Amino acid sequence: MSLIMSLNSGSSSLKFQVFRMPAEVLIASGLIERIGLPSSVFTVKANDHEESSTLDIPNHKEAIRLVLESLMSHGIVSDLKDIAGIGHRIVHGGEKYSASVVINEQVEKDIEVLSDLAPLHNPANLLGVRVIDEILPEAVQVAVFDTAFHQTMEPVSYMYPLPYEYYEKYGIRKYGFHGTSHGYVTKRLREILGSENSRRIISCHLGNGGSLAAVKNGKCVNTTMGFTPLAGIMMGTRSGDIDPSILAYLSEKEHLSLQGVTDLCNKKSGLLGVSGISSDMRDIENAIKEGSARAKLACDMYVQRVCNTIAAYAVQLGGVDAILFTAGIGENSIYLRQLIIETLEDAFPIELDRTANNIRRKEAKISTASSRIQVWVIPTNEELVIARDTYRLMK
Amino acid sequence: MSLIMSLNSGSSSLKFQVFRMPAEVLIASGLIERIGLPSSVFTVKANDHEESSTLDIPNHKEAIRLVLESLMSHGIVSDLKDIAGIGHRIVHGGEKYSASVVINEQVEKDIEVLSDLAPLHNPANLLGVRVIDEILPEAVQVAVFDTAFHQTMEPVSYMYPLPYEYYEKYGIRKYGFHGTSHGYVTKRLREILGSENSRRIISCHLGNGGSLAAVKNGKCVNTTMGFTPLAGIMMGTRSGDIDPSILAYLSEKEHLSLQGVTDLCNKKSGLLGVSGISSDMRDIENAIKEGSARAKLACDMYVQRVCNTIAAYAVQLGGVDAILFTAGIGENSIYLRQLIIETLEDAFPIELDRTANNIRRKEAKISTASSRIQVWVIPTNEELVIARDTYRLMK
Repeated sequence: MSLIMSLNSGSSSLKFQVFRMPAEVLIASGLIERIGLPSSVFTVKANDHEESSTLDIPNHKEAIRLVLESLMSHGIVSDLKDIAGIGHRIVHGGEKYSASVVINEQVEKDIEVLSDLAPLHNPANLLGVRVIDEILPEAVQVAVFDTAFHQTMEPVSYMYPLPYEYYEKYGIRKYGFHGTSHGYVTKRLREILGSENSRRIISCHLGNGGSLAAVKNGKCVNTTMGFTPLAGIMMGTRSGDIDPSILAYLSEKEHLSLQGVTDLCNKKSGLLGVSGISSDMRDIENAIKEGSARAKLACDMYVQRVCNTIAAYAVQLGGVDAILFTAGIGENSIYLRQLIIETLEDAFPIELDRTANNIRRKEAKISTASSRIQVWVIPTNEELVIARDTYRLMK
Repeated sequence: MSLIMSLNSGSSSLKFQVFRMPAEVLIASGLIERIGLPSSVFTVKANDHEESSTLDIPNHKEAIRLVLESLMSHGIVSDLKDIAGIGHRIVHGGEKYSASVVINEQVEKDIEVLSDLAPLHNPANLLGVRVIDEILPEAVQVAVFDTAFHQTMEPVSYMYPLPYEYYEKYGIRKYGFHGTSHGYVTKRLREILGSENSRRIISCHLGNGGSLAAVKNGKCVNTTMGFTPLAGIMMGTRSGDIDPSILAYLSEKEHLSLQGVTDLCNKKSGLLGVSGISSDMRDIENAIKEGSARAKLACDMYVQRVCNTIAAYAVQLGGVDAILFTAGIGENSIYLRQLIIETLEDAFPIELDRTANNIRRKEAKISTASSRIQVWVIPTNEELVIARDTYRLMK
């Protein structure tokens, strides 16, 4: 028996889960927000009990120390050395990492170099690794990359129609993100359906960020996020791919720097930008019920972009066996799943089972028995994948 | 009987065709390039004879005067007043113009205001109108807008996932271009097939610039070009839609202004950028035959993007009755049409007739008799549409 902690170290936040492996029993989880800001919030859940406290946590080292202390005080671990492995969510593994690896000096260096491609994420992820190096020097640390699952894409899918030299000089290509999630949910669906009936899966990870992946025989052949997580479909606050000329036009009109315009595409666009109401699909649904035309427009645009991608991937996969929904919106929005599948019904041999669709956060088939393309909801669990990979690589 | 001239006045070029209407007989055509530069080139074709001369043409007024003189000297017209109408290709008609109109003061003013949205095109188009005002004050002038056909799109298709206020303040939305061509070829195909068998058409205008349009019952419901002609699919030198974050990254790495990066997406990307060889599909095809891996990559990326769009539009149209190809690549590239249709064959009820596909610049059905989706080549003729609209509106 080993205790494994999965850690997601963001720029001002820290998420963790502790699993007893190989049984895969979740024994504690928690979240620290506003690290380095006044009034940080620390929430921890263990033994079916959740508590939250507000205090000042100046940096990641203090945050991790606090997490470990709380695991002791809750009796989750009697000695910190019981935590045999720590798995880190690392956003960017570039072209080098197509699978999880035990972290050594070279891996740390690579994560640092790749910070150029993920300046908001990799440095924060690496900070988590280094703090653990200091506090728990004997624990095995494993890097689980958000890009790894997508490394099986072919150049035709990952190259941009830009001058080729920028790929060679700067690595400008599609990397894709949410790979840990897409990998987990498609693997799970393949277990359920058997590999013969799940050769061609389209995985829809729809959360506040969102991406789709086309998966052939368990391998990713295309995905919507690109060089950065801004790319692809419309999201909560992100525009996704748009006419690149708009940036120069907006920059001039609004007197914004290029970075300012890019930030606007990242933080003020998507569902929020169109609806003017919220980036949260639950709020959008409520606003639609109350008659908001712009909320309806935002939702319809979102559905159009998801359906466009599903159709495109159906061609790239040479047909589809199954479509799956996961993540916040995918697992919870009965309404959105219905809109998406019913939009596809005229062009594809697919049929929604409205009764079966009436579920949230549960593994379920939501297409009718006669639907040639099966539709499933598969809850994602990135933390479990991180724990599994860590446990496997420790041995 | 009337003589109608269709005029396409660009920033440094002028294209014209003269038709005898209503018989639609083309009696002269020509092109002036490098206006305002040393050694302008003037090519005119009339009476089955083509001649080309090099001389200095300082401005559009001289260019148009020269065209009119040459029509006299070739005996095409005996008096300039024989030219009863001039139809102008105007790139941007904004949200106001959903059809061709006789040009009056207000229209001229609108075209000028819309120059903000098409700074490279509308001012040059307008220059042509004003020169004709001077030289042929009695001729009726008609504006034929490249955006007009797409004005039937719904907000769900024309809005961007950006803050809504930018649509209200600056008109940032999808306008679409190549509308005169998409309108002409889809109308022609509907004549051939009958309206019942052509309710859902996907029109692929693939030239050096390229766009697709989804056309339902003769009306455009979506198109790939957007706020500007940079948007949509990959083209000869244009990137089409990409991850907007790439612009800021490239700008920093290459020390380019935002306009510089946008220019790069317009002029050095697409087939040219990826292949490093040429923006011309004929050169790409030859390079593939000679074994160029990057030419093959460029071609495959192009095909993937066209197929993605066809699939997306099949969903939006609720199925497809016919796909048509037009413009330089669409009418001439047997190879590309084959790649596109054969890529679609696994996911859609479509089958290419390879023998029938072995044609160029000819109206022809290129799908098999058993293909549920029909595939056609329909040569485009924007100049004829301009002449027709002009003739119709003169009366």
